[in-house]
Amino acid sequence: MTPNADATPQLHRERALALLRGAERFVLCGHVRPDGDCLGAQTALCGVLERLGKQVWIYNSEPLPPQLDYLAQGTVFRVYDRGALPEHDVSVMLDFCELGRTGPLEPALAAARSKKLVIDHHLFHGAPWWDFAYVDPTASATGLLVRRIARELDVPLDPRIALGVYTSIVTDTGWFKYSNTDAETFATASELVAAGVEPAKLFNAIYQRNSRAQPLGVARALSRLEYFGDGRIAVIDLPHAKNGEADLPDGDDVLDLLRAVRRVEVVLFFRELKDGTVKLSARSKTDFDVNQLARAFGGGGHAKASGATLPGPLAEVRQRVTAGALARLIPDAAGAR
Amino acid sequence: MTPNADATPQLHRERALALLRGAERFVLCGHVRPDGDCLGAQTALCGVLERLGKQVWIYNSEPLPPQLDYLAQGTVFRVYDRGALPEHDVSVMLDFCELGRTGPLEPALAAARSKKLVIDHHLFHGAPWWDFAYVDPTASATGLLVRRIARELDVPLDPRIALGVYTSIVTDTGWFKYSNTDAETFATASELVAAGVEPAKLFNAIYQRNSRAQPLGVARALSRLEYFGDGRIAVIDLPHAKNGEADLPDGDDVLDLLRAVRRVEVVLFFRELKDGTVKLSARSKTDFDVNQLARAFGGGGHAKASGATLPGPLAEVRQRVTAGALARLIPDAAGAR
Repeated sequence: MTPNADATPQLHRERALALLRGAERFVLCGHVRPDGDCLGAQTALCGVLERLGKQVWIYNSEPLPPQLDYLAQGTVFRVYDRGALPEHDVSVMLDFCELGRTGPLEPALAAARSKKLVIDHHLFHGAPWWDFAYVDPTASATGLLVRRIARELDVPLDPRIALGVYTSIVTDTGWFKYSNTDAETFATASELVAAGVEPAKLFNAIYQRNSRAQPLGVARALSRLEYFGDGRIAVIDLPHAKNGEADLPDGDDVLDLLRAVRRVEVVLFFRELKDGTVKLSARSKTDFDVNQLARAFGGGGHAKASGATLPGPLAEVRQRVTAGALARLIPDAAGAR
Repeated sequence: MTPNADATPQLHRERALALLRGAERFVLCGHVRPDGDCLGAQTALCGVLERLGKQVWIYNSEPLPPQLDYLAQGTVFRVYDRGALPEHDVSVMLDFCELGRTGPLEPALAAARSKKLVIDHHLFHGAPWWDFAYVDPTASATGLLVRRIARELDVPLDPRIALGVYTSIVTDTGWFKYSNTDAETFATASELVAAGVEPAKLFNAIYQRNSRAQPLGVARALSRLEYFGDGRIAVIDLPHAKNGEADLPDGDDVLDLLRAVRRVEVVLFFRELKDGTVKLSARSKTDFDVNQLARAFGGGGHAKASGATLPGPLAEVRQRVTAGALARLIPDAAGAR
């Protein structure tokens, strides 16, 4: 049990703020395959701390994904490549709370004698292992917590901080369309636009830089659509692209189009990879829990969005998982179509 | 010249507020093919006026489109079917400012001895013909003006008013992604969510009730994609669906997917209708003005989104318009590919 185990979340947050105020050298680290919330929160917290005159290093296990490359304007993102981290007083985990999720960074972080601070909006069910925590699972994004921290540390929003927080918010709320989009999310977006963020420009950067093969890949995938369970399950199985066929770099467009069909409750998208294994992406529009489904096949994720990687062949995987979804969705009528 | 022609926009708005406060019977009317901003603003203004104890009738030339049918919960939308309008003191034009745009309603409105009030966010270049105007072209939506009116008339937001304003905002800003999305837009969205609006539920209602044929229609359209001008123009021509082929009820998904390709600046989508005429939808991602292009072929619209209807055949129309776009985009290299 940590010395803080008896404290309220509010008291925890006050202690975390005191740490941010008092310490001098910070390493901000992300989870493997860092997403927009993680990277946006790093950008924003880096901006806040540098305005307070602190030294900051950002370390991730991978470089920025291309659609978020604009975050590198004015902020240095380092890719960790073994060895010791720079001497620092505080290691900050942004958007996650298990040290193991830092991947290759884990041993270096564990070896560093820094205080460990978690800033996160996820629920955590294990025993707290960190020294300090600024956590609120009701926040729509970790970036929103960094915006609160800036206010509490009296750091005004500048264009870089605003860009980071905005990136966090839009990527974790699906551009304001998921159910976590609350009044604070919109109020914060309003402040960020006043501080210089241009929504249309960022939408273009994040979502409108697809390859020219993308629409043809989407066409190829959609043409394989089949409905099951009286139209409540939409299923696509996409064989690995052979020579001359359009590849599909990003499957989100396909998932979104299937989710947009009125009757569809569950979307199952199977993609055959080069080595013959099959990657499943499962989405739910209702209370149907695709996390449970994915777990039954060795994967996992969230109730509304989960995935799994299975050994092929494609047709057999598709048959098994679709039957599993049908049995869960319509217990009395598995196999109905 | 109207007696108000010398007044500032602010003074005009104050006079409009006095009219809304003082009069008793209102007809709210929309433009033909009323969109989300028009219908949302009607819903919200109806809510505001009814809370002030006024009598209100909403008249449009068409019924609510299916994706906006939820607006009818608690609000009566009438479809005008010739004859006189009920006796009323004020006719309100919401989201437009030319009486002719009311279509079949025009003679009845012109004959009514009511005061004519325009509430709108469009630029108007003609001579003012109305009695009163509450106009601000900097507002992202007409519904945002109704939200200001509610505040100025001391009417608190209730769930119905909030639903109307939110519908206006999201449909006219492309769900917060167009360049008109400003700080006031987000600040208002925050108030609306606090007043009971659920963004995820509304996203589902407006955008996730497609027919099950939609994804296959999108696939059929996308499979006909060709790029011109070194990938800067994306062109699709879609023949009328024959028996057994998937129809495409809504072309927006196709336009969005093409616009999302990095290099694409202009999207031209040609659809052959049942009678052989061709409907062109043109979109621009840059400064390229598709309104000018559409006007050259007898259509029109906005700089970023325009359309035209042309006599077929499809292949010939496609060739002519694409050549016109190429000549405008790359004056020195028409025909380049």
